[in-house]
Amino acid sequence: MMEARAALTVDAVRIREVGPRDGLQVEAPLSVEDRIRLIEALVAAGLKTIEAVAFVSPKAVPSMADAEKVVALLPKLDGVTWVGLVPNRKGAEMALDAGLDAISVTLSASEGYNQRNVRMSVDDSIDQLRDICGLAGEAWVEAVLSCSFGSPYEGDIAPSEVAAVARRCMDAGATALTLADTTGMATPRRIEEVLAATGTRVGLHLHDTRGTALLNAHTAYLAGVRDFDTAVGGLGGSPFAEGATGNLATEDLVYLMEDLGVETGVDLDRLLDASRLVAELVGHPVPSRVAAAGPRLNNPA
Amino acid sequence: MMEARAALTVDAVRIREVGPRDGLQVEAPLSVEDRIRLIEALVAAGLKTIEAVAFVSPKAVPSMADAEKVVALLPKLDGVTWVGLVPNRKGAEMALDAGLDAISVTLSASEGYNQRNVRMSVDDSIDQLRDICGLAGEAWVEAVLSCSFGSPYEGDIAPSEVAAVARRCMDAGATALTLADTTGMATPRRIEEVLAATGTRVGLHLHDTRGTALLNAHTAYLAGVRDFDTAVGGLGGSPFAEGATGNLATEDLVYLMEDLGVETGVDLDRLLDASRLVAELVGHPVPSRVAAAGPRLNNPA
Repeated sequence: MMEARAALTVDAVRIREVGPRDGLQVEAPLSVEDRIRLIEALVAAGLKTIEAVAFVSPKAVPSMADAEKVVALLPKLDGVTWVGLVPNRKGAEMALDAGLDAISVTLSASEGYNQRNVRMSVDDSIDQLRDICGLAGEAWVEAVLSCSFGSPYEGDIAPSEVAAVARRCMDAGATALTLADTTGMATPRRIEEVLAATGTRVGLHLHDTRGTALLNAHTAYLAGVRDFDTAVGGLGGSPFAEGATGNLATEDLVYLMEDLGVETGVDLDRLLDASRLVAELVGHPVPSRVAAAGPRLNNPA
Repeated sequence: MMEARAALTVDAVRIREVGPRDGLQVEAPLSVEDRIRLIEALVAAGLKTIEAVAFVSPKAVPSMADAEKVVALLPKLDGVTWVGLVPNRKGAEMALDAGLDAISVTLSASEGYNQRNVRMSVDDSIDQLRDICGLAGEAWVEAVLSCSFGSPYEGDIAPSEVAAVARRCMDAGATALTLADTTGMATPRRIEEVLAATGTRVGLHLHDTRGTALLNAHTAYLAGVRDFDTAVGGLGGSPFAEGATGNLATEDLVYLMEDLGVETGVDLDRLLDASRLVAELVGHPVPSRVAAAGPRLNNPA
């Protein structure tokens, strides 16, 4: 289904780091300067696609305020793509005006979650996605489909229904599509069932609510998926879905892929520096166990 | 290699619950009565093989003191096997005298860990295992091989070396063998490499130090392993290996297997009761994410 994603010529995965956005959105607000420090540490670790900001209501999500200020301070670097999440056309206009060259449009396979998260029906979200794709010109527009592996509101959503919404997003002009497991309801079986319906040229955005994020990523990798969203430290969660917890940790996925001999382009030691930084900035330990324990052969004896 | 384990006739896994032993050994000591309350809650959840005690030095591991008192109070139930862990011949004599019908003998594929954990060489451990098998009569003797997927002391241990020690344990008379990932160094690749050398008729004892326990269990399940040690709540760790953290949580494995349609004999709701009980007894939340979030379709909305 995802013609927009080119096949990789080596055994590699592409990571979209969402820590500065999804990772921070449920934390107490950080200063713009600290958000930039974190972003710079992620760049230093080798991350090439970074979701840096969200253009959302600062009243609803205070820690995502000042997106324009963050964008203005992003380092200008060849080969690094800066992404902003947007919930609607207005957010997309702000993101494009700010000069971002990639946007993630959040919508959902779940009517209940879509209403709570972006305050409109799925149909209206797809209409706005079409408008956004019209505005976007050369900018990359990723449609991110929340609750693709189950919804806290409707329960399981049929894989054919997820695939139908995904198809409508691509028909509306999206460059690519990510399936999100917003509240950690994915399991290996659900991953395989949904991918059988959508194809594997999709990105996956996984949460570790039930301890299955890394297992689901591995299952999807074996099925052929090569695009993953992760957040440094495993921070994260949705402010609009109770019980939603951290993202798949970037360090956990990089650790696994290194062991499998799969390229990520990320230096795990420098990533652990970024992980220590984010723990210091948010003022509490991060969920990632690799962050706590270190890589397997650096275990303290 | 493991001729002693009969093939299962249905798609099922066997769980040996080690929470009352491995789960509690690094916690502050509980009263004998509370240890029995936990064990009764685990039986009520449907667990049929429970490692209830360890016959080890109460000075070295204070929370495992009073093993005989616990054994004397174990409910007499058909179809439930009570297991005691022993580090040496003396411990085995105490376990058999107490009336246990199954013992786990802990030894290691790592000389460094074996010396620290049971204060003897691997050769001496295998000699004592042979003596123990001679004493055991009809009792089940499980050899549990620590650090089978890597050692904090020697690093990686060649799969052929792990398999050679495993073979020596079986030749010494062990009924069955479990490969333990004491400090969470296993990865899917290591699991496959070691199982290729040992065969899959082994049990696995996994720790979640680097967030890979459930992924490793799933990898091993797909390879053919059907015997898993788990601890309620994901509590646990070795007092003799710094950085060792919790076991694969029973609720996490049961949750995964239920989703895969694989029988465990365990009722997840009642298991979550046991999980809440153990959190209350140890006085802190347990690591299991399924314990925190509940099953996928019970997600709070």
